[in-house]
Amino acid sequence: MQKINLDKAYRLLNHGPTILVSSSFNGKQNIMAVAWNMPLDFDPPKICVVIDKNTYTRELIEASGTFAINVPCVAQVSLVTKLGSSSGRELNGTDKFAENQLETFAAKHIAAPLLAGCVAWLECKIISEPHNQNTFDLFIAEVVAAYADERVFSDGRWHFEGHDQEEYDKLRTIHHVAGGAFFATGVAIQANI
Amino acid sequence: MQKINLDKAYRLLNHGPTILVSSSFNGKQNIMAVAWNMPLDFDPPKICVVIDKNTYTRELIEASGTFAINVPCVAQVSLVTKLGSSSGRELNGTDKFAENQLETFAAKHIAAPLLAGCVAWLECKIISEPHNQNTFDLFIAEVVAAYADERVFSDGRWHFEGHDQEEYDKLRTIHHVAGGAFFATGVAIQANI
Repeated sequence: MQKINLDKAYRLLNHGPTILVSSSFNGKQNIMAVAWNMPLDFDPPKICVVIDKNTYTRELIEASGTFAINVPCVAQVSLVTKLGSSSGRELNGTDKFAENQLETFAAKHIAAPLLAGCVAWLECKIISEPHNQNTFDLFIAEVVAAYADERVFSDGRWHFEGHDQEEYDKLRTIHHVAGGAFFATGVAIQANI
Repeated sequence: MQKINLDKAYRLLNHGPTILVSSSFNGKQNIMAVAWNMPLDFDPPKICVVIDKNTYTRELIEASGTFAINVPCVAQVSLVTKLGSSSGRELNGTDKFAENQLETFAAKHIAAPLLAGCVAWLECKIISEPHNQNTFDLFIAEVVAAYADERVFSDGRWHFEGHDQEEYDKLRTIHHVAGGAFFATGVAIQANI
């Protein structure tokens, strides 16, 4: 895991991966899958995510003003689908982390836990926009720290090729279509212009 | 090319492809590449795109209140990069379509031309949000019609496998990282839950 310069943080999301949003407030924590996300600005980096009003995550991120983006990989598709199709609110006395025996590590600037096994992480502070939040479920946030697994992201670029290709293929980021159907991030192509 | 039911239109963008935004106003037209886009709602479908203030596209979409999303494919990566790294404003007496000898066809509800050779198209009407537009370069729009190349999208799903795989690989959607470096949409994965 390496720290990513903030002016390159947008590149972690520029190719449109599905993400996990983790949150924490007042001793409670949660994590959910979010396909609807995008970069919004370069430096300082801002991002957008869509978080439905009915979600437990919504409650925790509005209360704390912060959340973490975790960028999951092919090895985690079943976990991502599970985390995206159940509510942490319904787990009495436990949470999705304990229920799924998830390993986490601490963020530096926010309370939300970061999920081990992902390939990138962005610590985010919400820029309060009540109209966007209430009308569109749209959250705008500033990225205050970013990290990536240096096996697959370094010098500002994703690279999913390696000596043991089968292992690297499990580290590819993922793109949700619907109903647990994903695409892995595929072959690299360089344009000729 | 088949018409897509509006309640499934979000699936054309759900996996995070890079898009081309085409626009037209008062006899002028333009097309640019946009990596920063996402679905915002299911039905009626809404989407978000980020369009910088300095772009010619910005001028045309604010004047017309409409734009088209064209979803390009692997065969078009060099064109996408070219369309994303030059301004249509600087082309005296011509436009990017003529300059690049691009074939287009007419949209049904809006003036913006649709680019042939792409694999999906969404006709969009801007929902006026001056604060978002002025502060964040963020545009929210309603999708009023959607189409896809039925070779690669049908029954609400993308499918990039076919008898002649080399041909199908050229129809895969694309995901920009930076500087003309893209990933193709990769292998399909179904989660087990």
